[in-house]
Amino acid sequence: MKIVIAGAGIFGTAIANAIKKEHNIVLYSRSMSIVEDINNNRRNTKYFPNKILSKKISASNDLHTFEDADILFLCVPSYSILSLFSTIKISKNCLVINGAKGYGNEKELIPEALSHIIPNEIISFKGPSFATEMMYELPTSFTVGTQSPENFKTVQNLFRKGLIFLDHSEDILGIELVSIIKNIYAIVIGIVDATYNSANVRFLIFTKAMKEIKMIIEHFGHSSDILFNYAGVGDFGLTSLNDLSRNRTLGLLIGKGFLNAELGNSVILEGVRSVEKLTSILAFAENLKTPLLTNLNELLQSKISNKEFLKLILN
Amino acid sequence: MKIVIAGAGIFGTAIANAIKKEHNIVLYSRSMSIVEDINNNRRNTKYFPNKILSKKISASNDLHTFEDADILFLCVPSYSILSLFSTIKISKNCLVINGAKGYGNEKELIPEALSHIIPNEIISFKGPSFATEMMYELPTSFTVGTQSPENFKTVQNLFRKGLIFLDHSEDILGIELVSIIKNIYAIVIGIVDATYNSANVRFLIFTKAMKEIKMIIEHFGHSSDILFNYAGVGDFGLTSLNDLSRNRTLGLLIGKGFLNAELGNSVILEGVRSVEKLTSILAFAENLKTPLLTNLNELLQSKISNKEFLKLILN
Repeated sequence: MKIVIAGAGIFGTAIANAIKKEHNIVLYSRSMSIVEDINNNRRNTKYFPNKILSKKISASNDLHTFEDADILFLCVPSYSILSLFSTIKISKNCLVINGAKGYGNEKELIPEALSHIIPNEIISFKGPSFATEMMYELPTSFTVGTQSPENFKTVQNLFRKGLIFLDHSEDILGIELVSIIKNIYAIVIGIVDATYNSANVRFLIFTKAMKEIKMIIEHFGHSSDILFNYAGVGDFGLTSLNDLSRNRTLGLLIGKGFLNAELGNSVILEGVRSVEKLTSILAFAENLKTPLLTNLNELLQSKISNKEFLKLILN
Repeated sequence: MKIVIAGAGIFGTAIANAIKKEHNIVLYSRSMSIVEDINNNRRNTKYFPNKILSKKISASNDLHTFEDADILFLCVPSYSILSLFSTIKISKNCLVINGAKGYGNEKELIPEALSHIIPNEIISFKGPSFATEMMYELPTSFTVGTQSPENFKTVQNLFRKGLIFLDHSEDILGIELVSIIKNIYAIVIGIVDATYNSANVRFLIFTKAMKEIKMIIEHFGHSSDILFNYAGVGDFGLTSLNDLSRNRTLGLLIGKGFLNAELGNSVILEGVRSVEKLTSILAFAENLKTPLLTNLNELLQSKISNKEFLKLILN
């Protein structure tokens, strides 16, 4: 079996390390220095200077490497996925597993956007997973979104025992959506924590965020049951409450006044992009009240101050 | 309006401080030294040495003080509530608000146990609330469980603005139940954190805990929607993830091997009592699989080791 991982960043490399040693793994990277480092030194020094990679892991910057892949993990930023698929060919039997979090184009989720290009089911793969901890071989969980129980089993069999724990949801788009939305609310929690540093306030807002996430996913026709998957409350908790999280960190910086809205936008975090997109998508949903999302969008556009934002989301 | 708060501990005193200054508040305590401290010095030095209490707060150890109360807050340990009511009389119009977390007797929740003694509705009052933070006047949230929207409004009007944020559930027993169950799972998270100190593992288990909590409350006929109230995911997050929490701390001590099961039981935390009770109540629910609860009970009874416990709950 040939497994290709698109993206030899921190996440792609950690996924490669978690896969059983019996498989051949190719990390695809556009960076020749990373490709050479992996192939010559068995290291991805840029991200994991101290970690020796398995002999079964090689790297390539040849786009032809995708053609005979049995499994393809997407571990590149969401906005680059469509352009990647405009340059590669994959087998129609290839299992495509999406680890990227974000929209695929202006209004569509990644599996929707890819459905215009390839017939393959896009399997969703999301969970509370800091890549560095995965690399330290700490137990890590993901939700596998697929309509096929067989595909779920195939994904489950890829990983080394005791390292990766999976649950299953048939609601692929729901899992994609919640993985985007939770980044938005992690920014909110960061702002709140920078201001109050209080467990009472944090979990007051955490609850409001969970309620809003529930309302939004139900608005899009999904069952709130997916929030009880690893990709739901687990990933929201990890992302919103831990300083390794980039979206939480952005919130902390905003809350401490180190970032104004323009700088925040230039950080091009997927979470910031998602705030704008989701706000515009929901603009005509008149019965849906999402004060945390709406006011975060206003804050990121410098229309309200931090102080006004906090007052508005508390009440 | 006369408000009596049963229990001049940390929680009762913080509730008194959060109530509007226009009300007369009596803190009932059996401790004469606390009563005198409050009445003579306007302090509850034992718990808040630096805090001056409002002039409208007095204290009493006279059981007759309950008789003309319009509002009664129960801020005493759950196991002492029944014996308190065997010694006091209250008006049938008195609003009884229960802040205690635990069972009322061997198998009944506090509102069920009290329903044999008094006709008053027992309003549930639970949320992510460290009393010290409330006393520092940080915004704090609670769920008010009452079947009467009017009672909800009355409770809402008791509190100073900008300090206490409330949501409403009609499912009194559901709110009581989840406030007990979440303490159990906070012990589990503590054990896991003492061993792994990993965000990935923490939120893997946090998700499993949320799933089990959902299954248990649904087993008892409640809607899992209550988990989106402050008393649900918010209180579980606060209790399981913050070191001020006594149940999390017990878990940390167990996980680090400082506490064996016998010592753990002698700590008489309400969470430990609840593990035994809930396990025995659920013993005949054959289709309900609750590995975290079941194995924690085994661990607390020294039937399995920490290592076995962790292996069993991960898989």
